[in-house]
Amino acid sequence: MKASVRSRARPVHKNVLSPELAPIDGERRREHILRVAAYLFRTKGYKGTSMRDLAQAVGLTKSSLYHHFRSKQDLLLEILQHTVDRAIRRLERIARSSLSPSERLRLAVENHIVHLIEDLDNVVCFIEEGKNLAPERLRRYIQQRDRYERFFRDIVQEGIQAGEFRPTDVRLAGWAILGMCNWVAKWYRRDGPYTAQEIATHFGEFAVRALSRGYPIVWPRQAPGEEQRDGSTP
Amino acid sequence: MKASVRSRARPVHKNVLSPELAPIDGERRREHILRVAAYLFRTKGYKGTSMRDLAQAVGLTKSSLYHHFRSKQDLLLEILQHTVDRAIRRLERIARSSLSPSERLRLAVENHIVHLIEDLDNVVCFIEEGKNLAPERLRRYIQQRDRYERFFRDIVQEGIQAGEFRPTDVRLAGWAILGMCNWVAKWYRRDGPYTAQEIATHFGEFAVRALSRGYPIVWPRQAPGEEQRDGSTP
Repeated sequence: MKASVRSRARPVHKNVLSPELAPIDGERRREHILRVAAYLFRTKGYKGTSMRDLAQAVGLTKSSLYHHFRSKQDLLLEILQHTVDRAIRRLERIARSSLSPSERLRLAVENHIVHLIEDLDNVVCFIEEGKNLAPERLRRYIQQRDRYERFFRDIVQEGIQAGEFRPTDVRLAGWAILGMCNWVAKWYRRDGPYTAQEIATHFGEFAVRALSRGYPIVWPRQAPGEEQRDGSTP
Repeated sequence: MKASVRSRARPVHKNVLSPELAPIDGERRREHILRVAAYLFRTKGYKGTSMRDLAQAVGLTKSSLYHHFRSKQDLLLEILQHTVDRAIRRLERIARSSLSPSERLRLAVENHIVHLIEDLDNVVCFIEEGKNLAPERLRRYIQQRDRYERFFRDIVQEGIQAGEFRPTDVRLAGWAILGMCNWVAKWYRRDGPYTAQEIATHFGEFAVRALSRGYPIVWPRQAPGEEQRDGSTP
């Protein structure tokens, strides 16, 4: 199962549906089904995707597909579970490191964006389709999503306590940061002008500066008279 | 028609579907249909909503509904058109005012969030369901969405030129700002602890600080030794 997780984390490009990718043995077949399901759930929605659509897309009969996964719910759950497990593992490493809160926030944002883009199908499924889980599973899903978000809020809180960040509403700050990050999935294009790392770097700096108290000027100066301008009173 | 636009801009609460709201005369009937359609498109998606669902929700037969709107496409178009017209009018006033770029950016963010929350059904339709328009209409929709976004990028550009904002990629900055704003629709709850204006104020400041060069410290100071910390090198 570990191997399948790692392999599904590869970026899924538009050839995800092409038949020459169709694997043969059981474990690779399972991985392939999960990848194609994540692609279909992202592009057509969970509700808009039937087990028949999926069977067709992976070149199996419906009954063969049910041999691998008992239900569409099980498929969704497995996609979300692996995705959030991976995401929490990575974020936890950053959050618990000995770096300063500013540095941890920057890395957390960069990590979020790079993996969102590299693993777009799975991460967008996690963000957008979790609401389709049955009640008991939904409850656990929300707990895990909250746990992920809490790392961001905790970093912000620690930054305030350390005097690096200005006093602010930690929950709103967390939503602002995750919102700008998650929205990348809406406008990002693989053939667009930005690499994942360029976006990540830009957004990491954006978030840190937004929260920083008296961020020092490290950019080349111009129009020095303007620097005293106080933008806080519209 | 003007009157109907104004009236549809009122916040739509969960009683949007309740029968006692059902109006009688033609123009109010039309408004009511548009409000309920926006609610259904937001909550079930454009594709997930049939004209039958809508007819049922407004207490009409399908053929009476078609008397008011020739197709689901026409309904969607009218919702999006009025929504973007209103939004551009308001944003244009802010963008063209004589305020400083920082002040205009803050107001633009506040305006966006307050109207997103007050007019949630229509604005979320605009953001999420425009992709369902037929090709020619979709082209025009994208033009209008771009026009709206361009106001934000122009303010950022002007702020850089005026020396208020640090040099940065204007397009990425625009997406960061609109992303954090639009994401509010995902987590905002009418029964939650924040008013629209509280969120708007917080996010306005977040955006201005993120872009500002050497934002002056206006908050009560603590741990002054920490203020020289440079968060720019993770």
